[in-house]
Amino acid sequence: MTLTAPEAVDVSEPGSPLPGDPRAHLTSPVTRAALRIQQGLLAGAREYLTGHGFHEMLPPIIGPVTDPGARGAKQVDLDYYGHRYKLMTSAILYKQASLLAFDKIFCIAANVRLEPLETTNTSRHLAEFHQIDVEAAGATREEITAVVEGLVKHMVARVVERFPNEFEQLGRDTAAFTALLAESFERRTHSGTVADLRELGHPQSPDAEIDWEGEALISRHAAQPFFIVDYPKGSRGFYDKENPAEPGTLRNFDLIAPEGYGELCSGSEREADYGRIVARIRETGENPAKYGWYLALMREGVPASAGFGIGVERLTRYVTGLEAAWQTNAFPKLPGVVSP
Amino acid sequence: MTLTAPEAVDVSEPGSPLPGDPRAHLTSPVTRAALRIQQGLLAGAREYLTGHGFHEMLPPIIGPVTDPGARGAKQVDLDYYGHRYKLMTSAILYKQASLLAFDKIFCIAANVRLEPLETTNTSRHLAEFHQIDVEAAGATREEITAVVEGLVKHMVARVVERFPNEFEQLGRDTAAFTALLAESFERRTHSGTVADLRELGHPQSPDAEIDWEGEALISRHAAQPFFIVDYPKGSRGFYDKENPAEPGTLRNFDLIAPEGYGELCSGSEREADYGRIVARIRETGENPAKYGWYLALMREGVPASAGFGIGVERLTRYVTGLEAAWQTNAFPKLPGVVSP
Repeated sequence: MTLTAPEAVDVSEPGSPLPGDPRAHLTSPVTRAALRIQQGLLAGAREYLTGHGFHEMLPPIIGPVTDPGARGAKQVDLDYYGHRYKLMTSAILYKQASLLAFDKIFCIAANVRLEPLETTNTSRHLAEFHQIDVEAAGATREEITAVVEGLVKHMVARVVERFPNEFEQLGRDTAAFTALLAESFERRTHSGTVADLRELGHPQSPDAEIDWEGEALISRHAAQPFFIVDYPKGSRGFYDKENPAEPGTLRNFDLIAPEGYGELCSGSEREADYGRIVARIRETGENPAKYGWYLALMREGVPASAGFGIGVERLTRYVTGLEAAWQTNAFPKLPGVVSP
Repeated sequence: MTLTAPEAVDVSEPGSPLPGDPRAHLTSPVTRAALRIQQGLLAGAREYLTGHGFHEMLPPIIGPVTDPGARGAKQVDLDYYGHRYKLMTSAILYKQASLLAFDKIFCIAANVRLEPLETTNTSRHLAEFHQIDVEAAGATREEITAVVEGLVKHMVARVVERFPNEFEQLGRDTAAFTALLAESFERRTHSGTVADLRELGHPQSPDAEIDWEGEALISRHAAQPFFIVDYPKGSRGFYDKENPAEPGTLRNFDLIAPEGYGELCSGSEREADYGRIVARIRETGENPAKYGWYLALMREGVPASAGFGIGVERLTRYVTGLEAAWQTNAFPKLPGVVSP
């Protein structure tokens, strides 16, 4: 990929509008239209995934341990009959375990992450949000990214067809999705993306996630969603499988939206080997003992798999063309702000 | 209603089997069949409710305040950027607020209630569970119980038709639902139920919820689900509307399953008058100030409504004929028991 000069790109994220009071937000025609489209997207996800043999499950919202890989966000502790439990930051541990029941599963999961206060007005962070979480036993990265692509195309095609009035009301021209619906999603490597960003003068680290500014930059230059693959090992959770043929590189991916909307989805082939999982947990400085129930299952064996999570509010923001993720949630929780 | 003698009724709830380890539970054919039927019930709920003009919403799982009316269970506190938040014990406050966006709404909500330890082996209590939560602006109790009845019949008919193998595997004869599908659900009053129970020698209080033993007793004697209406005021949350024509009596209802499975659903017309809501909160000994955002909305006006919540695991237990609610949850949390 070659990026054009960044003159049209605003990478400062100057702050989006903040929600008004709950009455103003809930009675706004914008909120209503966004929520209708969001439910259309979720109905489309259910159609596509159940049509492709995935079983829906109800994911837990609390448990003794949760996903540590939440990019700078803090976990929420709570007291469960004298034991320290966590609110789920993602469904990853339960998705892998669920493969003991069904080979292909999905859930619409509520997650809570205490994002840093400086994310309050990034347009994209909510402390409480939802994911379409999918996991398939035996799948490779190629197979699971094909599911992502088929799923996103199906959801978008469905709402474009069924909600013309809502799109008109929101001023979103659905011609924005022509390339998305017609073409295959491009695939770029993390290292190639780093090189592109540096060429543009953006100091992206080769050993980390693409930072917010870099992500906005490449997203603004894209005409349709595209995958970034092969993130470096230190940048992601212990459950993203390391490529045995290319140590230090993970068999994972993100899906990046065009038009500056940034990341929509993260996923990977999973590490299913008990010894390597324990080693990876140790490498992050965590004590494997806190993953008790999960490691007990992994030790006895859980199917190798691949999967992903699509951020429901972020996807809705991109599809509706709205400025901020909070506009797509009926009771938005911005980091640090007390609200319903 | 006249009850026959209780000789065949075991009201002692002698304790159901407890879950084995997660692997045994998730790989059990019983669990798989129950989860398939549960997802069939939820798909049926979505079909019925969206077909009747209800909008699905994604409910919050945390907030500054939650439903206090959770029958002896404790709420879970957590720290949200230095503010004390709660895990949702029910979606009631958000359901009423959501009517500002849409006239008819529903959600599949995750709830957490720290039930007393003595409920661990009652077969019916889970600390984390789900509800099909429905609310309709302007609806009367008669209209909303008609929705309950139509919804339950649709869900049951759908799974009976689509999951014959799962029912066979579970040993559940679907002839159990013949009366449910063919007849109108009976309606009994709370006071009539109290009288019936006392006639049977069960010391049911006329001023309280029907107790577990009483509920099991009447449930075992029923041939199909039935409503109990008109609970006394002290027995329920402040949001259940008091009958102006019959002070002390609420315009609410429960749906009770046959065969001893007990309560499936609770609902009511809602109190929408700000002054009466504040008075009702005070009567329960709570400080109205803690309901800040909710009362602010109520003061300016939120549509009068009626609604209900159906317990997903309890409904699945009844439909599958399983002994315990935990058998219908992939990662069951029994009160006081540490598990995934």
